[in-house]
Parts: sequence; structure tokens; C-alpha cells
Amino acid sequence: MKKKKEIQRVDLSTIKNPDFLKDLSYKELNVLSDDISKYIIQVTSKNGGHLSSNLGVVDATIAMCRVFDFKKDKLIFDVGHQCYTYKLLTGRSLERLRQKDGTAGYQDIKESSYDAFEAGHSSTSISAGLGLAMARDLKKEKHDVISFIGDASIVNGLAFEGLNDAGQNQHKMIIVLNDNNMSISKPVGGFAKMFRSFSTSGFYRKSKHFFKRLLSGTKVGRKMYAGAVKIKNWFKRKILKINIFDSFGFSVIGPIDGHNIKALEKALIRAKSTDKSVVVFIKTIKGKGYKFAEDDDKGIWHGVHVFNPETGEQSYENGTGWSQIFNDYLVDVMKNHENAITVTPATGYGSHLSELFAKYPDRCVDVGIAEEHAVTMSAGLSISGFHPIISIYSTFLQRAYDQVNHDLARIQLNATLLIDRSGLVGKDGNSHQGIFDQAFLIDMPNTVVTMAATPKEARALLEESFNNHGVFCIRYPKERVFHYSSKQETTTIPYGKWKKELQGEKTAIVAVGPELLALKQLLVDKKLNVTLFNAIYQKPLDMEAVNELITYEKVIIYDPYATENGFAKYLIAELIKRSYKGDIRVRAIPSVFVNHASIEEQKREFSLLPEDVIKII
Amino acid sequence: MKKKKEIQRVDLSTIKNPDFLKDLSYKELNVLSDDISKYIIQVTSKNGGHLSSNLGVVDATIAMCRVFDFKKDKLIFDVGHQCYTYKLLTGRSLERLRQKDGTAGYQDIKESSYDAFEAGHSSTSISAGLGLAMARDLKKEKHDVISFIGDASIVNGLAFEGLNDAGQNQHKMIIVLNDNNMSISKPVGGFAKMFRSFSTSGFYRKSKHFFKRLLSGTKVGRKMYAGAVKIKNWFKRKILKINIFDSFGFSVIGPIDGHNIKALEKALIRAKSTDKSVVVFIKTIKGKGYKFAEDDDKGIWHGVHVFNPETGEQSYENGTGWSQIFNDYLVDVMKNHENAITVTPATGYGSHLSELFAKYPDRCVDVGIAEEHAVTMSAGLSISGFHPIISIYSTFLQRAYDQVNHDLARIQLNATLLIDRSGLVGKDGNSHQGIFDQAFLIDMPNTVVTMAATPKEARALLEESFNNHGVFCIRYPKERVFHYSSKQETTTIPYGKWKKELQGEKTAIVAVGPELLALKQLLVDKKLNVTLFNAIYQKPLDMEAVNELITYEKVIIYDPYATENGFAKYLIAELIKRSYKGDIRVRAIPSVFVNHASIEEQKREFSLLPEDVIKII
Repeated sequence: MKKKKEIQRVDLSTIKNPDFLKDLSYKELNVLSDDISKYIIQVTSKNGGHLSSNLGVVDATIAMCRVFDFKKDKLIFDVGHQCYTYKLLTGRSLERLRQKDGTAGYQDIKESSYDAFEAGHSSTSISAGLGLAMARDLKKEKHDVISFIGDASIVNGLAFEGLNDAGQNQHKMIIVLNDNNMSISKPVGGFAKMFRSFSTSGFYRKSKHFFKRLLSGTKVGRKMYAGAVKIKNWFKRKILKINIFDSFGFSVIGPIDGHNIKALEKALIRAKSTDKSVVVFIKTIKGKGYKFAEDDDKGIWHGVHVFNPETGEQSYENGTGWSQIFNDYLVDVMKNHENAITVTPATGYGSHLSELFAKYPDRCVDVGIAEEHAVTMSAGLSISGFHPIISIYSTFLQRAYDQVNHDLARIQLNATLLIDRSGLVGKDGNSHQGIFDQAFLIDMPNTVVTMAATPKEARALLEESFNNHGVFCIRYPKERVFHYSSKQETTTIPYGKWKKELQGEKTAIVAVGPELLALKQLLVDKKLNVTLFNAIYQKPLDMEAVNELITYEKVIIYDPYATENGFAKYLIAELIKRSYKGDIRVRAIPSVFVNHASIEEQKREFSLLPEDVIKII
Repeated sequence: MKKKKEIQRVDLSTIKNPDFLKDLSYKELNVLSDDISKYIIQVTSKNGGHLSSNLGVVDATIAMCRVFDFKKDKLIFDVGHQCYTYKLLTGRSLERLRQKDGTAGYQDIKESSYDAFEAGHSSTSISAGLGLAMARDLKKEKHDVISFIGDASIVNGLAFEGLNDAGQNQHKMIIVLNDNNMSISKPVGGFAKMFRSFSTSGFYRKSKHFFKRLLSGTKVGRKMYAGAVKIKNWFKRKILKINIFDSFGFSVIGPIDGHNIKALEKALIRAKSTDKSVVVFIKTIKGKGYKFAEDDDKGIWHGVHVFNPETGEQSYENGTGWSQIFNDYLVDVMKNHENAITVTPATGYGSHLSELFAKYPDRCVDVGIAEEHAVTMSAGLSISGFHPIISIYSTFLQRAYDQVNHDLARIQLNATLLIDRSGLVGKDGNSHQGIFDQAFLIDMPNTVVTMAATPKEARALLEESFNNHGVFCIRYPKERVFHYSSKQETTTIPYGKWKKELQGEKTAIVAVGPELLALKQLLVDKKLNVTLFNAIYQKPLDMEAVNELITYEKVIIYDPYATENGFAKYLIAELIKRSYKGDIRVRAIPSVFVNHASIEEQKREFSLLPEDVIKII
């Protein structure tokens, strides 16, 4: 069909499905790849989003779309945020990426039948893919299942459980392992080491010792051993391809240059033709084609807000992020508390802990995407007299529910949980909302749950968390702070106490978190005669304040940072226990999955803005 | 010190600490080992407990106690229920094992300073041990850290995350991997395959192909290849000791006969002397020394109730277990619903699903101790049109919080969750109480949470769960049922509806679960004029019933199967939303960790018996 012709450029806005790819020459595919990269840079520079990971997989996505037919074959992108090229090639516009009612930043089965599964949390793709493969075989259908997973995601326990099962059973799947030597920041652990350098692998060391023993038994042998350097290199080339995936029972293809579309195609065709499950190991460059992102070894270009594509200058939102503020405090706290150790599961950059990690390399640990391990290892540290500070996003803390419950709280161990991105998170959408942790933490014995309205309060809470209160949780939101001046400012909050911000009559508002400051301003401006409590501690409840609450005719609970099943119900039950007969009204997040939009739009949707509270006074 | 002497028998009741072991000869140690085994059989025959796993590790525990000094060295038993010998040797009586205020069935740091950590859930020991090792090194102390873990536990994601981190970092720890070829039932997956037969390992296959390629290039080569069978065996013996632990960076010692105390000691001394982290691979016989347990390949002797040590006849509690009842129903349900697939994370035997698994081998999957994978793989099945029935204990469901939330509920997939051992579980103690799941499931969107009072209702719920309601959770307790006659009996419960068991005036009781039947009987006997609702659905609430509730002067919520932060608060909040001004009283489990005792004793402690409800009417 195809004949020698001039290179044709594809108009990206006209793409309906990936069928056209089959008619392009490799030269044309390379041009297309460049055009897609440029378009992704342009779109994310306006809308924000995941940049580096998407640039890294443009070529691999093109190759997969040529070899497979995703009208019937199933492709799961692990985590799902590196699917921009795939969305383009399957006919979805990126113009309103991550905006309200626009294209989601992750795979989304409601958005397109080309999306076989969806995720926002990492490391689900192998297990989900095995489910698809098992279903296919039970239904006696024929199609391929491909899980596309990165080197950071594969070290998570769930991915391992999937590998352990998939490697040995009869439901064939293809795992494309994308090694970009980077992941969000640096991958951690033995697995990463294996990727980095086969020459230091256990097998090599073992072989060396074995050969040493074998050969040094005789004179000739000793001579041979002296020449073992050559053997070593031979072993490295020929034998040391053996890796962990072999142990699990997979066939392994690669490593393949992940930017050579022809080589990728060849490998994928081979993977398609094998009977047993196979791992295709590809090497890509994160941020490919965008200098600033290629040079980035810290993760600065992993998720971006808005930037100038020419200069690489990133604009940040106004104000200061809570993550940055906590980093500032932690630098002090770690100095004052020599038994403090900060542990994070690959979210150190996202939570702005770079300065802290640089300052205390011995007492800061990034365990990689291993939330469960982060918490249980912290339990081991805590039981030995250290005070772990676990820095984690709310949404990823869901991964460690059992470890917080069974390994920390149950043993009554002390730890500080810094829960970043608590509450609504905006554009990342329904997999990333930090709205569920508060309710499940409140139901855990031996835990304290708090949220500060101001940086000063946050600092006081951080200090208080060292006073042996068990699992001391400090939640903080993704929103920005506009009144942060110096990390030296602090305040005193007695343990378990709320703060009365305004004194009024008849109606009392109990509010949680920074948004109460805006509410307070509104109440003052409007000269409304109500009492406003700042419920810094969501658990334990301030019983003195609760006793005062029951003297009011009306109690309004305002928590725009968690579902209504958390603090709101916890307080209601306490009021009822004291036979409170007044009116109780609640403004909290309903227990639903909240789609991508701005945080402001999300709050408006659920009547969570301060003016919505005014309406119910 | 030691001289030739007659074999001295140790009086087990006089043991204060393991120091005496150093003075015993190997002959005497073997006698001691036999005596301990017999004693464990005797104790568990009365008190119930974990039998097979404890018999399997008597020798290994003796060896560890001789090589290490656990006054300073740290020993963590993974899961912790195979610590009976260790408890004996560290001076703890087993006479009141698992009874109220008696010795716990798991390691327990409050019980003895010899217990360095504690667990009831599996696979925490490597992460926790790494925490201990890191703490030791930061404090510049000198002692060993030993994590003793079985072949079933090591396949869990958390253990893997621990291995991945521990293998490559500088904090030395010793992992004793106890391969008893059995675990609770059969270990699953590629890892297990590796344990079983190194001859089928990826390395071997790969090597074979490599040699084939290498040798078949020349005539001589081809001849040599023909003789490759010999090479194969040589490779198997000498090279194929390479395994997954090497890939992670561990030294590997073994396999060692786990019943040869001398050999064990030698291996442990070697492990102690190495600088880097090491895996000591030991092979033991589960149930060692007790014929019935040794012959058991189903897990019948894993956890026992009461039995006759001579005949091996196990006595079961009176009545029928809910697990058995659900097995009966599932056999029918799987027949009627050809798209149903049962998935369980190693709890098939515990949940009495053997008959079901035998009947539908293609549609029943035991994924091993991999709770996260069980749920996410089920999501893959569900999205492909199958209806997964996930059978899991409440306490282990905590491990899969995020997978239920992010992979099932968020994508609005259909699945049935059969949550076994919901509520108080008695003697297993604080790590196994099934009291937290209800609260966190109620806060998850797209989930339904139910509990039946009778088998008939349970059957109706099971059927209803197939009607596309999202994640349909059916909780059932560990208690026994005395009114189950035939699996044919069923009843009709409209979706989301409660059942009015008694009609009265002024006071309404809303009760959950089987215990409401006893309450009902009491109410009838005492001729109390109250309304009794059977709240079969804890979520969604039956709004018609709630509307009726607000007409009563008093509402009592009785849920002895979950913490008060679950259904109780959920209902209170709904009543308050409707401005209910009557009295509300609650009898539910407080949010605390409940120690081992009988279920009856635990209920009494928290005033959860039916007579306690009568008192507050």
C-alpha cells in the first residue's frame, strides 16, 4: 500500500484513532513523535500536568499502538498519568486536560472504550492485567493484555504480589517494564540496584565465588582464576541477563531502546507471539526531547504547574505551600529532636523535603513507592526509641491503613504522621482526593488527628507530636498559604484544645483547617454574632469546648477537608451522648469520588465555601 | 563446664530464661524438643491455638536461643503465632494460653522484654526488623536482629517491600526463612515455585538455551549439547542455588534441615558472623512429631479448637459456623451465576471453602497471602464482566483498604465482599478483631454494607449482591449458628430494607446481626413494648424506617459487631439531619484494641450483651 513519498505531517487535532499509524514510515513516525512531544509540552505549560513521564513514552506508545489493536487488546498504564500520547492517538483532545469536564489526566474508562482500566495510585497494573487475562481465558476470547509499568512502580508490594502470581500461572500477559532510571525521584532498593548494574548482581557475586572455589583447587585452576577477569566479562555479557523476572517464571525480552520505534515493534511482536507471560524491558529517557526535563534528576519536571516552554521557567502558584512550610519546620524539629527520623514513600520531592533530606541524610529515608514498608519500618524505629515522622500524601496513606492500625497504633507506638494533600486536591481528580483518611484515622485507637488553620499552629502541633501521644496525625491541604512570613513564629496550643476565634451568642460554628480564617473574616465583616471554634484537634475532642457547645441553640460543623463521616459525625455523636437538643448543621465533603476541576470549583460544587456556611447560620 | 553425664530431663515448668540451653548436650536438646512438642500438643488440645506451625519450629527456636542472646538480640516471629516454644524458653507459662489475662497466642511486648516486636498479621517482620537494625546502627549499638518468616508470609507485598529495601542497605539483619512447604494451606505463585524446584527456575531454562546456542554452533558443540543432560545436572547442583534473594543483594545460607539443631546452630553462627544481611533458608516439617498434623495437607491442624491428643479427633464448637453456611450457599450461587468467581487470600480453609474450591476449580482462586492483589485482580475480572466474590477475614481486609477504595469502588465495579470474622473474635486477640472494617466501608462511595441475623437473610443478601450495586459487603461473625437446618431456606429482603421484628411504642431498637435474635427473645420474654428493627443494611440506610424512627421518643442503636464509629454514628447523623430531638442511646464496640478472651467475655466487658440493651430501654 505504502509507497515512497514525501514526509507527511499528521495534524494532531484530526486524529480519531490509531489506525493511521500503520501507514506511516519510520521517518514519519519520528516526525510524529516530535510533534506529539512538542504538543505535550505546550499543553502542560498551560494546564499543568505530568510532563517528564509523558515525554518519555511517546515512542513506546506509538509502537504499542502499531503492534496491537486496542479496540480489542487491553492496555493498562500503571498509575495512568503517562497516557497523554495514548489519549491523543485514541482521538481525545488534550486542550482542556485536567480541567473541569475536560480530559482526565489519567486513563478513564468512562472517557473512552480504549481505556481498559484506570488508576491514579501506582502498581495496580499487573494485578488488574492478570484479572483481564484470566477473564479472557475463561471466556475463551483472544486478545492481548499489556501492563505498562515503570521502574519505580514495580517495587511496590502490590506489583510484586501481581508478579508472583502472573509469572507462574497460565493466563498470558505482557508486561512492558519502562526503566527510565528515574521514576518520581530515584528508585530505591535491591530491585533498582538490579536495574542499574547487572555486574553487581547477586548472581554475579555468587558465580565469582563459585568459580573461585572451583578453579583454585588445582594449579591450572589457580592460573585460570587469575585470568578470571575475562570470564567475568563474559559472564556479564552472556549470563547476567538473568534477573528476578526469570525467577518468577516470565520470559524476558530486552533491554530495548525505548526511543527506537522499529526495535520496540520487533520486541513487542515477539512478546505477542510467545505463549507464556513475558516482560519486555525497555529503557527510556524521562523528559525525552525537552532539555530541562531530560537534565532533571530531582523530579522538578515530573508534575508541573505552569511554565514557559522556551525558558523552562516554572511559575508557581502565589503564596507558600504547606509542604514548604513543613519542610522549614522540620529542619528545626530534626535539629531539636535528635531521635527524630523522617521517612517518606517516594513523596519527598512532592512534599518539598529536599532541604531536609540534604541536611540530615542519616535521619531521612526515602523508601520508594512502598507505603506499607514505610510505616512498618517506622514501627521498628519507634519501638527502638526513635520518633519517626512519616511524610505521606493522604491518598497514599490509604495504602498503609493496616500498617498504621496494626503496627503502630495497636502497639501504642509514638510517631508523627504528616499527611500532605489532605482534602480536595483539584486537577489530579478522583483517585487523588485526600478526603478519606480523617474518618479512618479517627476510628483507630491510640491516634490523634489534627489540622492547623495557620502555620504557627502547625508548628505547635508538630512540637506537641513529640510528647508521647501515640500516632499523632497532622493533616495539611494542597491549598496555598498567604500569611506565612517566618518559620520562627509559633504559638501555644494546650494538648487537645480548640481555640475560640470569635465569641458570640446562640450559634456556634466548629470549623477545621485554614479555610476557617476566611470564614472568620466574613463573620467579622458581616458583624454576625456567632461563636467560632477552631477545632485544631479533631480527635480527641476538646470536652470543655463540647460542654460549652451544648449551651448553644445551634451548632454548625464546618470541615471542608474531609468527608462528613469523619470529624463531623464524631462530634455529632458526642453532642448526642450529652443529650444535646439544639440544631446541628454540617458542611463537610460528601462521601463521593470527586472528579478533576479546580479546588475552588470542587468546593463550590459541594457548598463548602465560607459563604455557604454563612447561609446556614 | 559440661561433662559426660546421664541425660537430664528439663522440667518445663521451671524454665525462667533460655540460659540453661547452653549446658545441654545435643541428645538432651533433642529430648527437650520432644518434651516441648508434647507439651504444646497437650496445651493446644485444651485451649486451642496454632498447632502445626509451632511443632514445626521447636528445634529452630532452641537453636536460635542457643546462638543468640535475646536479652539484647532481637527476634521477630512473623505473624507471631509460632512463638509457643519461645514463650516457654523465655519463662512464660502456656497453661492459660489465649485465655483472658493468660499468655497471648502471639508475641507481645507488654508480656515480656524478650519480645522485640509483635504481630498478628503476616509479613511485617522484615520491615520491622529493618527498623530495629537501622535504630541499632544509628545508636551505634551491637546486637543482632532476626526476622523469622515462613514461605507463605514472604510472598506478601509488604515482605517484598522489606526485602527490596533490606537487601541493599547497610543495616545488617538476619532473615530465617522457614520453608515448610505448606504455610496455612499451599503457598502460591512464582516464589513458591522457586522454593519447590530449582530445576525449573528461569535461570536454568535460560542457561540451557544459552548453552544450546553456544554449543550448537559447531559440530563438536552439537555433540557436546547432546551430552548436555550431564551439564544440566551439574548446573542444577552447583549453580542453581542462585535465587531471588541473591538478586536483592542478600547472602544466602542453606537450605538447612530445620530439625537438626547442630546444623541449624552452625548456619546461624555463620549468619551472625557475616557483615551483610543474610537469608538462612531452613526446611521444616509442619506439625513435626504429631502424626495427624504431619500428614495434614489441608491446614486442618493449623489452628485448632479442642482435640483428643491420642486419637486426633477434633471437637468443634456446637452449632454451625457462618463460614460453613456461606460455603453451602456459594456452591449454589456459583452454579446459578456462571460469571461468579471466588477469590481468597489464603483463607479458603479458614473460611471453610474447600467444598466450593473442589467443585469449581476454574472459578475459585486462592492467591496466597496477597490481600491487595486479591482485590485488584478481582477489579480486572469485574471490569471484564465477571462477578468476583472476595472471601476475606475482616482483619485482613484492612490490608486492602486502598484496593477496595481505588480499584473497585472508585471505578464503580461490582463485586461481593464476604467478610468473615466480623466483630469480636475472641482468643486470637487484639490483632485479629474484625471491628474496624464497617466504619471504613461505610465511608467509601459505591459500597453497600450488610449483615444478616439469620442464614436465610444471608442467602438473600448473597443473591442481592449480584444485582449491580457496586461493592456489596456481607459481614458475618465468628460466632456459631444454632438454627441452621437447610441451605434451601431463603427469604426475601427488598434491597436496602430493614426488617421490623417487633412492633412497640415509644422506644425503637435498631439492631445489627445475629445477636438481635437473642435480644428479640428477651424482649418477648420480658413483654417489653418496644419496636425492634433488624438493620440488615447498614448502608444504605432504610430511609422509610429512619422516617419512622424519628416518631419514637427513644432510639437505641445496638451493633455488637463493629465500632461505634461505623453504623451507629452513620445512623445518628441521619437522625440529626432530620432534626430528631428524642433520646439516642448506643451499644456498639468502643474504638479500642480488644485483648484475647472469649467472645462472651469481650462482649460482657463492653456491655454488649442483649441484657445490657434491656437495661437502657
